[in-house]
Amino acid sequence: MDEPGRPSADAMTNPRADRVREVAKLAGRSGRLKRRQFFVEGPQGVREALQAHRDCLDAGGSPVVEAVYATVECLKRHDELLELVHHPGSRLQVRIASDMVLSAMTDTVTPQGIVAVCNFVDVPLAEVLAARPKLIATLCRVQDPGNAGTVLRAADAAGADAVIFTSSSVDIYNPKAVRSTAGSLFHLPVVRGVELADVVAAAREAGIGILAADGYGLLNLDLLQDESAARAFEQQIPDAQYALEDPTLWLFGNEAQGLAGEEKALADHRVAVPVYGRAESLNLGTAATVCLYASARAQRRAE
Amino acid sequence: MDEPGRPSADAMTNPRADRVREVAKLAGRSGRLKRRQFFVEGPQGVREALQAHRDCLDAGGSPVVEAVYATVECLKRHDELLELVHHPGSRLQVRIASDMVLSAMTDTVTPQGIVAVCNFVDVPLAEVLAARPKLIATLCRVQDPGNAGTVLRAADAAGADAVIFTSSSVDIYNPKAVRSTAGSLFHLPVVRGVELADVVAAAREAGIGILAADGYGLLNLDLLQDESAARAFEQQIPDAQYALEDPTLWLFGNEAQGLAGEEKALADHRVAVPVYGRAESLNLGTAATVCLYASARAQRRAE
Repeated sequence: MDEPGRPSADAMTNPRADRVREVAKLAGRSGRLKRRQFFVEGPQGVREALQAHRDCLDAGGSPVVEAVYATVECLKRHDELLELVHHPGSRLQVRIASDMVLSAMTDTVTPQGIVAVCNFVDVPLAEVLAARPKLIATLCRVQDPGNAGTVLRAADAAGADAVIFTSSSVDIYNPKAVRSTAGSLFHLPVVRGVELADVVAAAREAGIGILAADGYGLLNLDLLQDESAARAFEQQIPDAQYALEDPTLWLFGNEAQGLAGEEKALADHRVAVPVYGRAESLNLGTAATVCLYASARAQRRAE
Repeated sequence: MDEPGRPSADAMTNPRADRVREVAKLAGRSGRLKRRQFFVEGPQGVREALQAHRDCLDAGGSPVVEAVYATVECLKRHDELLELVHHPGSRLQVRIASDMVLSAMTDTVTPQGIVAVCNFVDVPLAEVLAARPKLIATLCRVQDPGNAGTVLRAADAAGADAVIFTSSSVDIYNPKAVRSTAGSLFHLPVVRGVELADVVAAAREAGIGILAADGYGLLNLDLLQDESAARAFEQQIPDAQYALEDPTLWLFGNEAQGLAGEEKALADHRVAVPVYGRAESLNLGTAATVCLYASARAQRRAE
């Protein structure tokens, strides 16, 4: 038996081997759902996956990473990855593979030298809400995997407590989406496959306000930020609209059409990000960034 | 002769025709530089180009659009485009072309039914600075055309007065970059092919402060925003660092490495966008959005 954490002697060189095909199947949604697994490519993503794996096992949880495949060259360049695999009790080993094998696994022309097969990391909605979150981003009908990953990464940067993908959104375990998260997929709880109406009802029950990001919204985000700043300076605010300091769940819609009428109707307020220039609209990543940072800033100032 | 603005009778159906090849050459940098022209695809981009063309001619300027090629189906779906072409004095006509011709022109698998050949729209740096700008975004060594376009669009939304691409940045007339701007390329002045040191020297001479967006910066953007809010509420601020209300030129660096040491050294301050969560860094679009919106908000509140 191979020593755990050490590169195994028998390097994988056959791109048509069964095991390679099994990993490659995780590029498709049905393959992922069948095994409840996905893959992460490249040193940065795999490092975050291995750290999450270590933290999860240390906390008595179940393994995040199931297998790691890498070229010798990649391991030489990134010895921190081997160290992570070596973590006591990680029960992992690195299988050495050729570039052609990694390329066949991930269907990329320029493989990044390392691939980790991971178990699904999403959690139930109830678990997220039980942790008394202050800031949640919810994506409705977002179609582009790159956009989904970018918003997840921005939500991580803004210190959001969770990101929710409704059942009509692209699969966050799509390889392109995973790549766009730059590791953030392993940083904060992710919920998927839920219906928007259920999310909103449960969040409201938990005392969380619901804001819809809507270019046509009557409420301007600047007004909410001004109100929040005024409270910080202990000014009186007559007719305040909504306290950005309060626990908030933001709804973001499809990249081309935004939120649908029935989706907006579920929110407490429809909030427009101001467009100061002549742009017709903001792209999804820009709008989500401005909204989440506005909430994060108001909440942190009020702490 | 064809009636200006009317679809001409002789539809283009040969994807190997000389004129098709001439347009296709604009997909490459050298082809664009030789003719000082680029192309815009799709109804939204072409609409913005035609509006800029009309506004420019009305103001006594030179034509923006040189030629428009479209399918009959696209013109039927978007009659506002024909109306724009019909503008008195636009001296344009739409050439009807087949999908195969448009596909050959733009090298896209799914052509969007309309293409406009445009003259370069960038302006000299001196012209931008003479207009007493308050907010400018400068991109240094940005490599991905999609990122360049996204930042230009975010700068437009934030009401920036200009966007500058230094000579080491990707060409903003690259078709993918043009597409990512979603028309914003025609909304605000763009400067290109300038050296960063020259930009900074000229901006400083014009009384504009220089801020470098830098994840390792000692100055936190939140602090600058708090100072700005405090001034708005007429509070005393001992040891204020920088007034976001003042005219500002932001420097944004390469998407992977950020700004280089010698680039940061040109700035008055290095400003970090706060990362509240566990994300290692922000992506370029997110960072630029937060910085530009912070400036825009401070400046508008102070007006």
